[in-house]
Amino acid sequence: MAELVRFSVSMDVQLLERFDKLIEVKGYSNRSEAVRDLIRNALVEEQWSHEDEEAVGAVSLLYDHHTRELSDKLIEHQHSHHQEIVSALHVHLDAHHCLEVVVIKGKAGKIKQLAEEMIGTKGVKHGRLMATTTGRDIV
Amino acid sequence: MAELVRFSVSMDVQLLERFDKLIEVKGYSNRSEAVRDLIRNALVEEQWSHEDEEAVGAVSLLYDHHTRELSDKLIEHQHSHHQEIVSALHVHLDAHHCLEVVVIKGKAGKIKQLAEEMIGTKGVKHGRLMATTTGRDIV
Amino acid sequence: MAELVRFSVSMDVQLLERFDKLIEVKGYSNRSEAVRDLIRNALVEEQWSHEDEEAVGAVSLLYDHHTRELSDKLIEHQHSHHQEIVSALHVHLDAHHCLEVVVIKGKAGKIKQLAEEMIGTKGVKHGRLMATTTGRDIV
Amino acid sequence: MAELVRFSVSMDVQLLERFDKLIEVKGYSNRSEAVRDLIRNALVEEQWSHEDEEAVGAVSLLYDHHTRELSDKLIEHQHSHHQEIVSALHVHLDAHHCLEVVVIKGKAGKIKQLAEEMIGTKGVKHGRLMATTTGRDIV
Repeated sequence: MAELVRFSVSMDVQLLERFDKLIEVKGYSNRSEAVRDLIRNALVEEQWSHEDEEAVGAVSLLYDHHTRELSDKLIEHQHSHHQEIVSALHVHLDAHHCLEVVVIKGKAGKIKQLAEEMIGTKGVKHGRLMATTTGRDIV
Repeated sequence: MAELVRFSVSMDVQLLERFDKLIEVKGYSNRSEAVRDLIRNALVEEQWSHEDEEAVGAVSLLYDHHTRELSDKLIEHQHSHHQEIVSALHVHLDAHHCLEVVVIKGKAGKIKQLAEEMIGTKGVKHGRLMATTTGRDIV
Repeated sequence: MAELVRFSVSMDVQLLERFDKLIEVKGYSNRSEAVRDLIRNALVEEQWSHEDEEAVGAVSLLYDHHTRELSDKLIEHQHSHHQEIVSALHVHLDAHHCLEVVVIKGKAGKIKQLAEEMIGTKGVKHGRLMATTTGRDIV
Repeated sequence: MAELVRFSVSMDVQLLERFDKLIEVKGYSNRSEAVRDLIRNALVEEQWSHEDEEAVGAVSLLYDHHTRELSDKLIEHQHSHHQEIVSALHVHLDAHHCLEVVVIKGKAGKIKQLAEEMIGTKGVKHGRLMATTTGRDIV
């Protein structure tokens, strides 16, 4: 079990009121949960600014599955990096478009590179890398 | 078949040299492909600035699957919005952590709201929304 | 004088250790200050997602001051929106390039529009909008 | 005088129509200008991902000028880094709040560090770093 600690935060009463409204809108159950999320976001951002940190990324790839040989190319690319590329989700958006979300685990720099290669593949219409974390250091 | 058109872009020779280096690093096969991607990114960004535009988002949720009832809560939430929430990928990162990537389709404003609710759920350690598109208008 | 309140935040001991390292790197003097900044960032982000909220923005415009009539055009544009455009800083980066930072106050939607018009002016080589706040609601 | 070149971009007719609408909204005078801006943005982003690249940043600092000794501290900090910190613009937003925009020139990594120190100063309510460029390589 993880050990819990408490610390107190001082704040102007108006800032706290605004914060309480925000966490209500965002659906948080309490302040601690919301503060922890802000802290984790800041940590993940910091992690991703160092190329050698272990991280996890999810890449979205939007394409027309009729594009010749594109699926083959993307699968080929993913397999040749099977140590980093963990798995993929394929969503059929309409008769033409599919969205593939590929999860990559490895050093931040390597994840960026693999993501850029996939996003840059001819036929991929839109692609984005979402930076997240292995979770290990942000219990 | 989509109809292709061509237009020409004028540019300082040094800016073009820098661009050519960048697209090499990013692994693009040619300039048109790289310019199209920049344009599509700009369009998707614009789309997401209007709450009523149809869009697609992918939400990453990192959590410890030992957290009591968390998986149940997330699945429950997803089912009660089954019209927008298309599907989900579950990745086992280590003995404790899993990454879930949930694909949501609907109005940009609604996607944001659903994403925030899931990210704000107690026990979710890190969450991010990745904005992408239905593809329909950015052939 | 603003009234100060305190609330306590519970957190896993490891997450707190990581946070303490981060705030040391970022040069914060204590945890409350760092948490308040995370909260204010989240509030400003929320503010900017509503087009009608009062906000403040700073636009950076990089250009070659030899570009014909560009300075005139930019000054003209700023004056015709003098109710929103507060003031500007002009920095001489080298013999050719100058950086102009223009501060705009008004509704978030209007600030975005004015920023885009200036960034889109022929001859402006790089431009960015930085979203900040009037400060009034985030004491 | 800079040497101009032309290259042609092929694109689906619908994508081009959407792009033309976007550049109209953003107030660009022609396609080349808009494409050049997208390219420059991509280049600046790439520049900032390398800590040793020469860059330019603008930091916004929002604070209440009644905060004890804050202005002194900020000026002191800026002077002790006068080689990087070029100049600053001070805007009086209301009776209490001021916005200071500080322009920093140097290596991307150093700019980030100086910006974080200023943003982290007790009393600064909101701060953001806007990444731009010396302009030299993106004529």
